[in-house]
Amino acid sequence: MKTTRITVSEVGPRDGLQSIASVMPTDAKKRWISALYDAGLREIEVGSFVPAAVLPQLADTRELVEHARTLPGLTVAVLVPNLRGAEAAVTAGAHKVTIPLSCSETHSLKNVRRTHAQMLDEVRAIARLLGSLPPSQRPHFEGGLSTAFGCTLEGLVPPRRVVELAEALIAAGCDEVGLSDTTGYADPAQVRSLLRAVWAAVGRERLKGIHLHNTRGLGLANALAALDLGITTLDASQGGLGGCPFAPGASGNIVTEDLVFMLEAMGLDTGIDFAGLLAARAVLAAALPAEPLYGMVPLAGLPKTFVQT
Amino acid sequence: MKTTRITVSEVGPRDGLQSIASVMPTDAKKRWISALYDAGLREIEVGSFVPAAVLPQLADTRELVEHARTLPGLTVAVLVPNLRGAEAAVTAGAHKVTIPLSCSETHSLKNVRRTHAQMLDEVRAIARLLGSLPPSQRPHFEGGLSTAFGCTLEGLVPPRRVVELAEALIAAGCDEVGLSDTTGYADPAQVRSLLRAVWAAVGRERLKGIHLHNTRGLGLANALAALDLGITTLDASQGGLGGCPFAPGASGNIVTEDLVFMLEAMGLDTGIDFAGLLAARAVLAAALPAEPLYGMVPLAGLPKTFVQT
Repeated sequence: MKTTRITVSEVGPRDGLQSIASVMPTDAKKRWISALYDAGLREIEVGSFVPAAVLPQLADTRELVEHARTLPGLTVAVLVPNLRGAEAAVTAGAHKVTIPLSCSETHSLKNVRRTHAQMLDEVRAIARLLGSLPPSQRPHFEGGLSTAFGCTLEGLVPPRRVVELAEALIAAGCDEVGLSDTTGYADPAQVRSLLRAVWAAVGRERLKGIHLHNTRGLGLANALAALDLGITTLDASQGGLGGCPFAPGASGNIVTEDLVFMLEAMGLDTGIDFAGLLAARAVLAAALPAEPLYGMVPLAGLPKTFVQT
Repeated sequence: MKTTRITVSEVGPRDGLQSIASVMPTDAKKRWISALYDAGLREIEVGSFVPAAVLPQLADTRELVEHARTLPGLTVAVLVPNLRGAEAAVTAGAHKVTIPLSCSETHSLKNVRRTHAQMLDEVRAIARLLGSLPPSQRPHFEGGLSTAFGCTLEGLVPPRRVVELAEALIAAGCDEVGLSDTTGYADPAQVRSLLRAVWAAVGRERLKGIHLHNTRGLGLANALAALDLGITTLDASQGGLGGCPFAPGASGNIVTEDLVFMLEAMGLDTGIDFAGLLAARAVLAAALPAEPLYGMVPLAGLPKTFVQT
């Protein structure tokens, strides 16, 4: 009997689609999101409220939030880079907003042209906005600690700095923080030690999720390390969309299909039906025929012994 | 400071080369084995003593054992299917002989045309042969429990059967048993429960190694699960040779390069130098230009933060 519920948070519509050149038509995105929902996914990051000039692939995020809100029980998540994005997210009715804060200030400056202090100002402004809303309309507010395991620009990111930024995000008004292995640098021992360090500072209820990449093949091993310690939310991208595991620099999110297989095989409850997941993958593949999709289980097939209960 | 020593047992020259159509020239095999040794590998399965008519790719195993024996401190391992193979291994001077016993009797019958009882007779005959040798010339004798995590023919392999066969192998004279995920069915929870069950029956000193495949992407997660419980020997194949992770039915050994990266990044001591491993990979690639080589770290590169101490 399965007792532990694990949330697989699908980030393909945001992280996957923002990393590819093709623009997926809005109707196809809606079909894909609905198919993911039908498979049992109950948290989907549907887009990002950034200027269309920056990420034209995600210019329809508002329409996708509206569509996703029609799916009962779905947590509709979006990324926001700043207060303006958060305002759009609130207007659209997102249930969860995540602001990324790069632990590497060099990366932060290069990526969003903001220092840590400037980003924390944005966080405080967003927290004020959300605090002004009636609780029933207030989205959950997460701070995503990107480059938490190392940076391609700065190299080592001291764990002490990650802990301090986690504390600063909570102090600035985030409900929760998440750890993100943006660069695919993490190893299982590091995942464990960093989780313990951040938990010691902000409490376990303030850090329940992790965003892992498979750039160096350790994605699922890192996921296991996090699960063993009690992490209950794992980001993943269907078909590893947007990240070629064999291309340096690519994002390489862990693949939803392989993650769900691992979790279910271990007897953990994802609520996700594998056949439904393959149906959603087919929707994605049909909409983006030129994009490579990854994942070992979709190609090798499920073991003869695999039974979903 | 690194304290835990993990043995990465390279099985590419046997498991990799037996799974491909190309025949690697003997001189190239010797260069590859020497390059793996130079990188720090101290256990290499150099071949299999099977009739050349069955596996022409491995017909030069005797010559490879002789070559590998010239490398100081290297444990020269070979696979043997029966007494005849063990006799050849002893004559050649192998330090370790492994006889595979498929936990699925259907698979055993199909693969080597022998029942479990017949295989155990071979094990007893080999044990008698080895027992007649002076201790200094007696190779370590391992029984490899293949299809221990499930079988493509029989499906579920009851853990009870794996435990009974482990006990039977030890009773028949094996020094040690190993668990092998021949089919790529294993998940981390299963790895842990099966290790515990076999240890309870035969003792931890009788099971120190595991042979994992990456067919469904869980290879390194399963390795982590085994390491966490105290497994100290992990089989792997350079470049994942012989197993296309995207081809159903292929062997798909875990990739030596990725495994070594994970272990060293975690602070475990493999004694293996990553640059040396890439040099050995280049020798392999030059000798078999038509064979695809796998591995995420060789393609993505080491993290900027990775330092071998």
